[in-house]
Amino acid sequence: MQHNVLINGQWRASTGTTFFQAVNPATCEPIDGSYPVSPWDDLEQVIAASVEASREMRGWPGERFAAFLERYADRIEARADELVALAHQETALPVSPRLKSGELPRTTDQLRQAARAAREGSWACPTIDTKANIRSMHGPIGPVAVFGPNNFPFAFNSVSGGDFAAAVAAGNPVIGKGHSSHPGTTRLLAEEAFAASQETEMPAGFVQLIYRTSHDDGCRFVGHPSVGAIGYTGSRSAGLRLKEAADKAGNPIYLELSSINPVFILPGALEERLDDIAGDFSGSCLMGTGQFCTNPGMVVLLAGGKTDEFVSTVAAKFSAAPVGTFLSEAVQTSFLSGVAALREAGAKLLVGGEPGGGAGFCCQNTLLTVDGAKFLEHPEALQAEAFGNGSLFVIAADAAQAEQIAESLEGNLTGCIYSNTSGTDDAVYDRIAPALRTKVGRLLDDKMPTGVAVSPAMNHGGPFPATGHPVFTAVGMPQSIYRYSMLQSYDGIRSHRLPASLKDEAPNESRWRSVDSNWQQGNVRTE
Amino acid sequence: MQHNVLINGQWRASTGTTFFQAVNPATCEPIDGSYPVSPWDDLEQVIAASVEASREMRGWPGERFAAFLERYADRIEARADELVALAHQETALPVSPRLKSGELPRTTDQLRQAARAAREGSWACPTIDTKANIRSMHGPIGPVAVFGPNNFPFAFNSVSGGDFAAAVAAGNPVIGKGHSSHPGTTRLLAEEAFAASQETEMPAGFVQLIYRTSHDDGCRFVGHPSVGAIGYTGSRSAGLRLKEAADKAGNPIYLELSSINPVFILPGALEERLDDIAGDFSGSCLMGTGQFCTNPGMVVLLAGGKTDEFVSTVAAKFSAAPVGTFLSEAVQTSFLSGVAALREAGAKLLVGGEPGGGAGFCCQNTLLTVDGAKFLEHPEALQAEAFGNGSLFVIAADAAQAEQIAESLEGNLTGCIYSNTSGTDDAVYDRIAPALRTKVGRLLDDKMPTGVAVSPAMNHGGPFPATGHPVFTAVGMPQSIYRYSMLQSYDGIRSHRLPASLKDEAPNESRWRSVDSNWQQGNVRTE
Repeated sequence: MQHNVLINGQWRASTGTTFFQAVNPATCEPIDGSYPVSPWDDLEQVIAASVEASREMRGWPGERFAAFLERYADRIEARADELVALAHQETALPVSPRLKSGELPRTTDQLRQAARAAREGSWACPTIDTKANIRSMHGPIGPVAVFGPNNFPFAFNSVSGGDFAAAVAAGNPVIGKGHSSHPGTTRLLAEEAFAASQETEMPAGFVQLIYRTSHDDGCRFVGHPSVGAIGYTGSRSAGLRLKEAADKAGNPIYLELSSINPVFILPGALEERLDDIAGDFSGSCLMGTGQFCTNPGMVVLLAGGKTDEFVSTVAAKFSAAPVGTFLSEAVQTSFLSGVAALREAGAKLLVGGEPGGGAGFCCQNTLLTVDGAKFLEHPEALQAEAFGNGSLFVIAADAAQAEQIAESLEGNLTGCIYSNTSGTDDAVYDRIAPALRTKVGRLLDDKMPTGVAVSPAMNHGGPFPATGHPVFTAVGMPQSIYRYSMLQSYDGIRSHRLPASLKDEAPNESRWRSVDSNWQQGNVRTE
Repeated sequence: MQHNVLINGQWRASTGTTFFQAVNPATCEPIDGSYPVSPWDDLEQVIAASVEASREMRGWPGERFAAFLERYADRIEARADELVALAHQETALPVSPRLKSGELPRTTDQLRQAARAAREGSWACPTIDTKANIRSMHGPIGPVAVFGPNNFPFAFNSVSGGDFAAAVAAGNPVIGKGHSSHPGTTRLLAEEAFAASQETEMPAGFVQLIYRTSHDDGCRFVGHPSVGAIGYTGSRSAGLRLKEAADKAGNPIYLELSSINPVFILPGALEERLDDIAGDFSGSCLMGTGQFCTNPGMVVLLAGGKTDEFVSTVAAKFSAAPVGTFLSEAVQTSFLSGVAALREAGAKLLVGGEPGGGAGFCCQNTLLTVDGAKFLEHPEALQAEAFGNGSLFVIAADAAQAEQIAESLEGNLTGCIYSNTSGTDDAVYDRIAPALRTKVGRLLDDKMPTGVAVSPAMNHGGPFPATGHPVFTAVGMPQSIYRYSMLQSYDGIRSHRLPASLKDEAPNESRWRSVDSNWQQGNVRTE
């Protein structure tokens, strides 16, 4: 069966003539049904329909988008069993707890948080200068193209994930570009999104879906003058190609590319709680076969003390732990070549490193090690990401070298420091933390980085090349919404023409507005 | 005399061997003193010193930056006469009211607003999630390179303008790249900035200045991995080259490139107050010889009614008004070629168009006209900016065509609509405004765009190619500060290690913080 794309309110055959199939990574067998590779014709049609939807929705209140998001969340829940089963087949991620009780509820929660943000309206940062009668807020940016990654078939899916929720909450139509490793899951989600959009009377081109394009058409797509912004989560190489095309056109592109999420474990922490930390680390690094954006791919330890014991404890855990299945053959290939590149650059294999050990596409749980001096000779090569169930221990000679290692890091999503709770590590902490702070979007004490709470204070972002712009976060409401907006100032606009958020009379009691530099709810009050 | 560059706390000779002189645009004569073209050696040194300053200032409270900014503003005022005299000589902008009572006070006011924002600390958007114990705020991004434009020797100067003030308020060192048309003014300002930085004990590399580089070195500079962010205001062609280099390196670059600032004047407005609008428009378009980023370079009128009378009234004013001097020969050249390009594309000359008519580098006040149908045939060519004392009238056949013209616009800083005060134009307004809204950063009713108030609700920004990113504004505190920051989340960080803004106890009474999604001042209160 050849599946359809969703263009301008219709599930219709792609104009393309080439197709691909998803593969069950646990059996390495193709899954029934084939999906089209969309040629430029398809893209031209989705862009035109998205522009039309964008025009039609100009000035719509947040309530319209909230109603859609909530209806969609309900529909996902109603079809949860089928979604979970297909996602499991396409990704080999465990049904439970991962897909069923973890990722799916997270996804619907995120959609509902986005709905609340859209309805309540504070995300748009309404700002009123009563003296000058200048008022500003964030408004929609126009058609948003979302490229979903392989590793979260629901929570980062192009038609249901964080980018989708944020783009819709900001008032935009979305063009989803599904990930080739789970087209069926994406199709089911798009069916529900489309049905919800019809039930809530959204324009025909509000949610659209294509499955795959050529690299050239992908670049042409993100560089199209009618595209408002792009969200991309995926490999660094493909992301940088898209970034170049979008940058050239001046289209904002938000990227989440790669991150090794360095963890510094200080000597006093190991003295105090070696086993706990070894357990935390192994759990964090092997969970989901290590296929998390925030997987701890590098651990910096100081030579001496209990460091050798920690390393051998973790090595034993890695050898003993079951080997998970990768999301696809491509992940296996890139993991193995990543491990080879680290060894090439001077890292030594401690355990694992070979394909196999579990079902389907997989590789043994892998640990490598390198000393700090060697790391500092090749910091770039030795911090290349090997996405999967592996990590690199870097053994620094002393605190000064650990600090140098922190300074040599590229931009990352997260950085963790474990230290002794009684303060014996504080002098070392105070050398490493300031350096690490400038390199990571989120700094953690005594915690592994893999949990990414949907919190207003979350930053799932960080300096390049972890992402494309260090001001923005991809997770967290309402902060992630801004990305799909433009700042709009109203200078001397007659009051009846102002958007509801900027009139003296507040549109609702909960909307926060900055009035003459003071945050307030309710009608404009001046002092 | 060969002037020095300011590198790492020392006024020293550039390592370069080529020099340039400023030219008095009113006399076309070179001004005494020559300025170096900095080779890569100079740039390497300023970058290294800036990185060192950035490290030294990690964790510094806003108060330190506020003290510097205020001291600097005082010093500028103490040297105002000399600054104004030299700026007048280098730019031909009038001493009074422009430079002395307009731009200089605006500049010191902006520095003091930045100081207040840095001290008060709300700009960093401290956000606290008490349940998850995740906290976030914006922190400094690192060395900021600022490229100043030709048209505001004080208020947008690389070492005293809006970008400088914002970058410092965010806690960053600045590397100024002065504009070649007013190197002396920039030098005087940098002298005062440096003296103020010494008085307030800032690091040696906190403020640095070079005057000129080759295009290749400029690109290498903005693409350097140690540069945190770049602010650029200037020509589109040079800006796009820098953007490409910065984008490739993943360095955020904030650009202000070009804008024709369309003004729609509806029939009822002309019926009601033709003379007032003609006066407003002529004043706005000819002020400063039209050399404003927000100069109204295009006026859309509807055929019929009083449109012909308006056009001839403005044409008479343009012919009668004195002709101002351009900032440089380069402006004259580009204005003339801009006018030629508009004529090439089908616009007809109404008045002016020839060089001369005033002192030094200048051109007659110029008006062109084209009908709406012709405009829509070549919308790109006919909205190319001719920076200077000229404008293009576009005569639309009807409201539908005016709306199409609005839809065909590129990104602009501003868009204005004049309408009848009794509402007779409202139906047409309601067609044009929604289209225009998506194309401009600031929408105005019944006002010309040239006044850019330093207000929290100002947006001096807009979609590409007016700027490089539509979320940000270059003018207005505290909104312009974010540009030079990165979002920093603190996840489970022990309370004594948190930055002052994120501790439960507030660092001051005025700092606004979002606590569990409610804005509040003072210590953390949960409900």
